[in-house]
Amino acid sequence: MNEGTMARILLKNVDVITLDRANEVLRGADVAIEGKTIAHLGQVPETWVADEGLDLADHLVMPGFWNAHTHASMTLTRSIGDDLPLERWFNDRIWVAESGLTEEDVYWGAMLAAAEMIRGGTVGFADHYFHQHRVAEVAEQAGLKALLATTLFGAGDELTLEDGIEEALHYHGAADGRIRTALGPHSPYICPSEFLQDVAIAAQREGLMIHIHLAESEAQVAVSREKYGKSPVEHLRDLGVFESPVLAAHCIAVSESDLDIFAEKGVIPVQCPQCHMKLGMGVTPVPAMLARGIPVAVGTDGPGSNNNLAMLEEAQNAALIQKLHLRDATVLAGDLPLRLATTHGARALGFADSGILRVGAAADLIVLDCRKPHLRPRHSLVGNVLYAAHSGDVSHVMVDGRW
Amino acid sequence: MNEGTMARILLKNVDVITLDRANEVLRGADVAIEGKTIAHLGQVPETWVADEGLDLADHLVMPGFWNAHTHASMTLTRSIGDDLPLERWFNDRIWVAESGLTEEDVYWGAMLAAAEMIRGGTVGFADHYFHQHRVAEVAEQAGLKALLATTLFGAGDELTLEDGIEEALHYHGAADGRIRTALGPHSPYICPSEFLQDVAIAAQREGLMIHIHLAESEAQVAVSREKYGKSPVEHLRDLGVFESPVLAAHCIAVSESDLDIFAEKGVIPVQCPQCHMKLGMGVTPVPAMLARGIPVAVGTDGPGSNNNLAMLEEAQNAALIQKLHLRDATVLAGDLPLRLATTHGARALGFADSGILRVGAAADLIVLDCRKPHLRPRHSLVGNVLYAAHSGDVSHVMVDGRW
Repeated sequence: MNEGTMARILLKNVDVITLDRANEVLRGADVAIEGKTIAHLGQVPETWVADEGLDLADHLVMPGFWNAHTHASMTLTRSIGDDLPLERWFNDRIWVAESGLTEEDVYWGAMLAAAEMIRGGTVGFADHYFHQHRVAEVAEQAGLKALLATTLFGAGDELTLEDGIEEALHYHGAADGRIRTALGPHSPYICPSEFLQDVAIAAQREGLMIHIHLAESEAQVAVSREKYGKSPVEHLRDLGVFESPVLAAHCIAVSESDLDIFAEKGVIPVQCPQCHMKLGMGVTPVPAMLARGIPVAVGTDGPGSNNNLAMLEEAQNAALIQKLHLRDATVLAGDLPLRLATTHGARALGFADSGILRVGAAADLIVLDCRKPHLRPRHSLVGNVLYAAHSGDVSHVMVDGRW
Repeated sequence: MNEGTMARILLKNVDVITLDRANEVLRGADVAIEGKTIAHLGQVPETWVADEGLDLADHLVMPGFWNAHTHASMTLTRSIGDDLPLERWFNDRIWVAESGLTEEDVYWGAMLAAAEMIRGGTVGFADHYFHQHRVAEVAEQAGLKALLATTLFGAGDELTLEDGIEEALHYHGAADGRIRTALGPHSPYICPSEFLQDVAIAAQREGLMIHIHLAESEAQVAVSREKYGKSPVEHLRDLGVFESPVLAAHCIAVSESDLDIFAEKGVIPVQCPQCHMKLGMGVTPVPAMLARGIPVAVGTDGPGSNNNLAMLEEAQNAALIQKLHLRDATVLAGDLPLRLATTHGARALGFADSGILRVGAAADLIVLDCRKPHLRPRHSLVGNVLYAAHSGDVSHVMVDGRW
């Protein structure tokens, strides 16, 4: 499409899960898309004429998924480290594979991930890995939105903080705004304190987000207390890391007072439920976070641990893991698990106009084909999507108004 | 096909997860099917000539799934009772819907379930519900294998034990052996003791299995101790129920000594992990059962609580729920979760020649289409199926040598 043209696409007779403030679910509605945004929803004025019309009877439209924590190129390590505890998974398998990783590997691994993500209804992802300029190429070519962060250890590797800043500034806003960037210090248990402090200062100075791993286990908390006399969360706060918007992956071993810090500083935790289950890591206290107004997001983590990038299943797992953990079927009720994986994720990654279907929002949406036995009858569209559907039911994906 | 003909089908160039004793996984193998059974596996003699050949390069063959506990017709109540605790789920929603259920509803509900089960790779199921003669019709027409049990309360309903026995004897061995039957007393917490004793005597006399709900919660155990001075498991043992082969659904609130009883009496517990998570019920102690040699099977429970009949996802959930619960990534390692959902299920339902791919076994198998991004690369076929695939990847289903 030429720059400047405003394609008008009309989706007809479709059921819509809007995930708007009123939890509105429409049946047999029309959705009009003009350029990159949703122009009408429900009833479309007769004067509005489409360039392209699509009858989606027996289909369902909802916001696309946002994967708020992954290492996309780890598709290459899919299923190589099953049934191992975290340390052995990393040291015996993943690190061995990653130590020989080339730029070209990262590109093709991310390209495979992009194909998988699009097929499963993901419209945007937060990546934390190496050679992010090649992942930026993939996001641009695949038409996805992304928040990209180069993994920085702060010691013993060739990548300096300056490299990370340069890369982040270079790609921020690229691909017509679809690509945003962040600084990606690995974690408080790997990065030296001085380095984290430098990251904090640079992020504030340059107006960048920070994407980091945080509080993955009680063992990490114990080491932090031993070393710094503080929890990992307190440690990051005191280093100034939370003065910029922070995406904090995992956050399993967090105390009540850690959560108070998250709420005060606007830190956004990302739970990765399938990975947390598969590696026996534990449970991110999502209901307690939500009760404090902390808008938790959902990620898959890398396919080396999950073993896929299926966000629909991840929304389901986000609900199931809490209901089991708290022995309470009523937690994370209704469309809330879907919101964590769409609306919350979009906002967490800095794309505030996505993850919701309403007039004026970005046309980042997916279609599910409901002409399948497991999606009948349709007593509750939300219940069917969350607890009966799978990634293979996604039939169409649109980002910024383009299929 | 006419009776007596022996169709010969050759599956070529396919990867095979056999689930045999040696955990053999073949790559690019051939599978020859003659009539209802597997005639050759791996190399097929040149003298063996097929009537029908199918090139399945980039596909994977494995045993079909066995759903060891469901209420198939509850497809009709899919997604009507989400986010409710067990009691309210049943009393406010399910019972209201079921009280108006006709024979015809049961037929069409089960027919929808059959379509869903076949699409998702299930070859056999254990059903526990009303109007089982209509479910038998569905199993016969759909080409599925089944163990059917009419739900009997033993008080306050029109169905007597004699009705249950008559129905069970009438359909046992029907559909060319694809249908087996069991007696289906609801549970020790609903059925009177005298009734359970009569069931036990009748099952032994007629050589029938028993399919029952058991030990779903600590509350049930407390009531049982109060009423009988025994755990529900001890109660059933003392009534003679375990003198016949028993399929016991749920078995969450079971003690070490209850497990000893299971091992001694050959009782087969069926865990329903997605249902146990979604309703916040807890965790069946599967690793402890397996350690005692108890061959646990897997079921979905009815789609009113799950909300689907997806056994591939259930095998995955069976692994994830234990790894999380025990905080141990190494439990239920390798292909064991697949075995629970195939081999164990087949044997539990009385179909000992199914659930495994080897020469002479029943040709009850499924094909997965691996030409999809989320199933690449192929470091571990088992890892890909268990942790990356979904029900929609099933492309072909064969029961007794027929697609």
